[in-house]
Amino acid sequence: MTAPVPADVLSRLKAVLGEAGWSQDPERLAPKLLEWRDRWTGTTPFLALPTTTQDVAAVVGICFEAGVPITTQGGNTGLVGGQIPQGEVLLSTERMRAIREVETFDDVLVAEAGVTLAAVHEACAAVRRRFPLGLASEGSATVGGIVSTNAGGTQVLRYGMARNLVLGLEAVLPNGEVWNGLKRLRKDNTGYDLKQLMIGAEGTLGVVTAAALKLYPVMASRAVAIAGVASPQAAIDLLVRAKDETGGAVEAFELMGRMGVDFALKNIAGMRDPLAAAHPWYVLAEFSSGEPGAAEAAMERFLAAGLDDGLIGDAVVAQTEAQAKALWAIRENQSQAQKPEGATWKHDISVPVSQVAAFLTEATAAMQAFAPGARIAAFGHLGDGNIHYDVLRPEGGEDARHSAGRDQGSRIVHDIVVKLGGSISAEHGLGSMKTAEAARYKSAVELAAHRAIRQALDPKRIMNPRVLF
Amino acid sequence: MTAPVPADVLSRLKAVLGEAGWSQDPERLAPKLLEWRDRWTGTTPFLALPTTTQDVAAVVGICFEAGVPITTQGGNTGLVGGQIPQGEVLLSTERMRAIREVETFDDVLVAEAGVTLAAVHEACAAVRRRFPLGLASEGSATVGGIVSTNAGGTQVLRYGMARNLVLGLEAVLPNGEVWNGLKRLRKDNTGYDLKQLMIGAEGTLGVVTAAALKLYPVMASRAVAIAGVASPQAAIDLLVRAKDETGGAVEAFELMGRMGVDFALKNIAGMRDPLAAAHPWYVLAEFSSGEPGAAEAAMERFLAAGLDDGLIGDAVVAQTEAQAKALWAIRENQSQAQKPEGATWKHDISVPVSQVAAFLTEATAAMQAFAPGARIAAFGHLGDGNIHYDVLRPEGGEDARHSAGRDQGSRIVHDIVVKLGGSISAEHGLGSMKTAEAARYKSAVELAAHRAIRQALDPKRIMNPRVLF
Repeated sequence: MTAPVPADVLSRLKAVLGEAGWSQDPERLAPKLLEWRDRWTGTTPFLALPTTTQDVAAVVGICFEAGVPITTQGGNTGLVGGQIPQGEVLLSTERMRAIREVETFDDVLVAEAGVTLAAVHEACAAVRRRFPLGLASEGSATVGGIVSTNAGGTQVLRYGMARNLVLGLEAVLPNGEVWNGLKRLRKDNTGYDLKQLMIGAEGTLGVVTAAALKLYPVMASRAVAIAGVASPQAAIDLLVRAKDETGGAVEAFELMGRMGVDFALKNIAGMRDPLAAAHPWYVLAEFSSGEPGAAEAAMERFLAAGLDDGLIGDAVVAQTEAQAKALWAIRENQSQAQKPEGATWKHDISVPVSQVAAFLTEATAAMQAFAPGARIAAFGHLGDGNIHYDVLRPEGGEDARHSAGRDQGSRIVHDIVVKLGGSISAEHGLGSMKTAEAARYKSAVELAAHRAIRQALDPKRIMNPRVLF
Repeated sequence: MTAPVPADVLSRLKAVLGEAGWSQDPERLAPKLLEWRDRWTGTTPFLALPTTTQDVAAVVGICFEAGVPITTQGGNTGLVGGQIPQGEVLLSTERMRAIREVETFDDVLVAEAGVTLAAVHEACAAVRRRFPLGLASEGSATVGGIVSTNAGGTQVLRYGMARNLVLGLEAVLPNGEVWNGLKRLRKDNTGYDLKQLMIGAEGTLGVVTAAALKLYPVMASRAVAIAGVASPQAAIDLLVRAKDETGGAVEAFELMGRMGVDFALKNIAGMRDPLAAAHPWYVLAEFSSGEPGAAEAAMERFLAAGLDDGLIGDAVVAQTEAQAKALWAIRENQSQAQKPEGATWKHDISVPVSQVAAFLTEATAAMQAFAPGARIAAFGHLGDGNIHYDVLRPEGGEDARHSAGRDQGSRIVHDIVVKLGGSISAEHGLGSMKTAEAARYKSAVELAAHRAIRQALDPKRIMNPRVLF
């Protein structure tokens, strides 16, 4: 917990923000102090609600001068506690909602930090463009949050993470100065890429106030299918083939274990088993192409070859947009569907694609030994080697007992991940949750470099001080 | 010029490198002290020729301790003087030539710093993969240099710059410690992306010793065409249409003015005028697709539509690989073809794509006023807004007189670039050549951030001290 904020600092903040620009009303604050899965609660003496970059600069400048720490919050959809203040001033971007520009010669959309991802998608659709970053939380997740956490999602395989989708940034640095890096250039080699340093820094190097996002063309054809496969290795073999044979037309290649599909069928209304029989594993594949009909043709060829040589047990291709949505809904509800099943240890890990099968085998054996009867729901972005590896309490087991084993259980999973050359946080970030564990796995050389950079840009450590190293 | 290197430091360097690992032989040194266009010459008291990362670490460690500056050199193909030492110890990566691994499940190639780009392409072809970064200098340019300068090339439009093509890095930091960031993960959100900070840092934050490069599938179809157009704006309109209608199948979209085509026809053996009549501007377009026949079909549609509505005056599609090469040769020889024409002011600039036509109009008017009779050869990567804007002396004019106007002329060009939201170095970097000019255009906020980061990681400023800010 941080030290109380001096009264004169609060007065100065109120003065620069104006009446509508701040709150200390517990009811107004409450939803911002609770993480959406109820895992973290926080406190703050003061909620700043700036509407402009200059407001943000004023707030950060005052706090910098006084050494008062700040936590920045976007849509409050983070999964690792980074956005929940523990006594810091809370800076919300919720009133910074302008889409400043959409431009189709440069294929750029300039949005302020508080614009939701859904609003970005809407603005793109209006000009026949696409911002290829999709999240289940897109109605709440904001541009500032997406950039600051280097968000991933289901289209990373083809388009990369948020890091690859940003042309320029505007940010307020920890000393309160405004950095205008809001370029819309595809090429700019004039020194260190500050933008890339800010992306994924989880707000520790400043407050992202606006971003110039890279737009892509809308695809002429799209095909979505689910295939039942015998093993993760079969899924990997299919992935390699799909990438090779379609020349990069694979938009998504998702893996799901049967247990997760069962949870979805049982716990989510309106779900249907996608194939006639149950299969141990499922691949959800999406291809797209600029050529009319090409995605469908490529999918047909891909599935036929897989069925022919036995890599695929059975498969279904969506014939309508509604069917495509229904197939995707099975995948998108994997996390939600676990909720009624009780306590879970969740892991957002990545390993090299070549190691996914080894990881699943080894981790599952280790979990069976450590927590007999635990139920494994593994699913994720196979194309990125990113598996959400969730370990649920045994059926009928006690939540509290399972939760008590979390730290030790997760340590076992993460040890296997790191041994296989992987990452203990593929797309969710470290926040305040994984700080200690990340420090355990990072080399001393890397930690020292991280800390030197942070110290250089935020010498008083006022920006999201609980977060990262 | 830097201070002489103390004798005991030289002795220690010789001891760790072994007999074949260093040279002070002027003949051995000479080719490394001369920039390939003869624009810069340098000096060095000592050439270090390490073969391993540990050797590099030892060299850097010794120099760090003694505060002795180092310049790192790869293939010596840089265009901005960064690789030419001015009294520093010269660290060449030429003996670090191992391709450590090529792996097609992870689609990764791990190469040491001294591996040439041509060798990378060869190793990829052997496993039916592709590393989509092409440079005219690929026989000499090395992995370390490409990464350290964030190289571009002709496929940036689709695949991005070197920055987008690196999965992991190994580097020796300025203090001599080895940072092993040689991951092969598509997703890893565990703190600042040091890799992205090192890429494009032009060797100022350490020596890149190896890189894990991202491989892509080979394309099933490919179409190359040249179209004659009336103006840059017509070319831009065509670009927007091509991107939109092909759903991202555009691999390259290059612009050339007629003057540069004339130089190629006159000064390069074996060139043929691509179209029956001369056109003021030319577009060289390449489409590719994973679907057999799709690239050709898309190109036919694209050209037919352009001819129909008059955006394209005339066009030719390559029917064979040899014809495709011949069309590309016109573009690739644009720089070479200027040589016999005398003194040139070269500019590697980028502006937002929407501003390319405005830039060309404004810059050319300004040049005609400032240097009457000067010949403008403008060509480049239109899809990236990256124009190589070269101003040649008037026909029959004096080289020396033209060269004398370079600084002032370039200032005029760069002022226009910056006014239009562009960059004065799109892909070549700053090196030692553009340092002062870049400092003129960067904001104080950005310069301070750059310097703070450099100071944090290289407190004695021993790495490429002449380079960047």
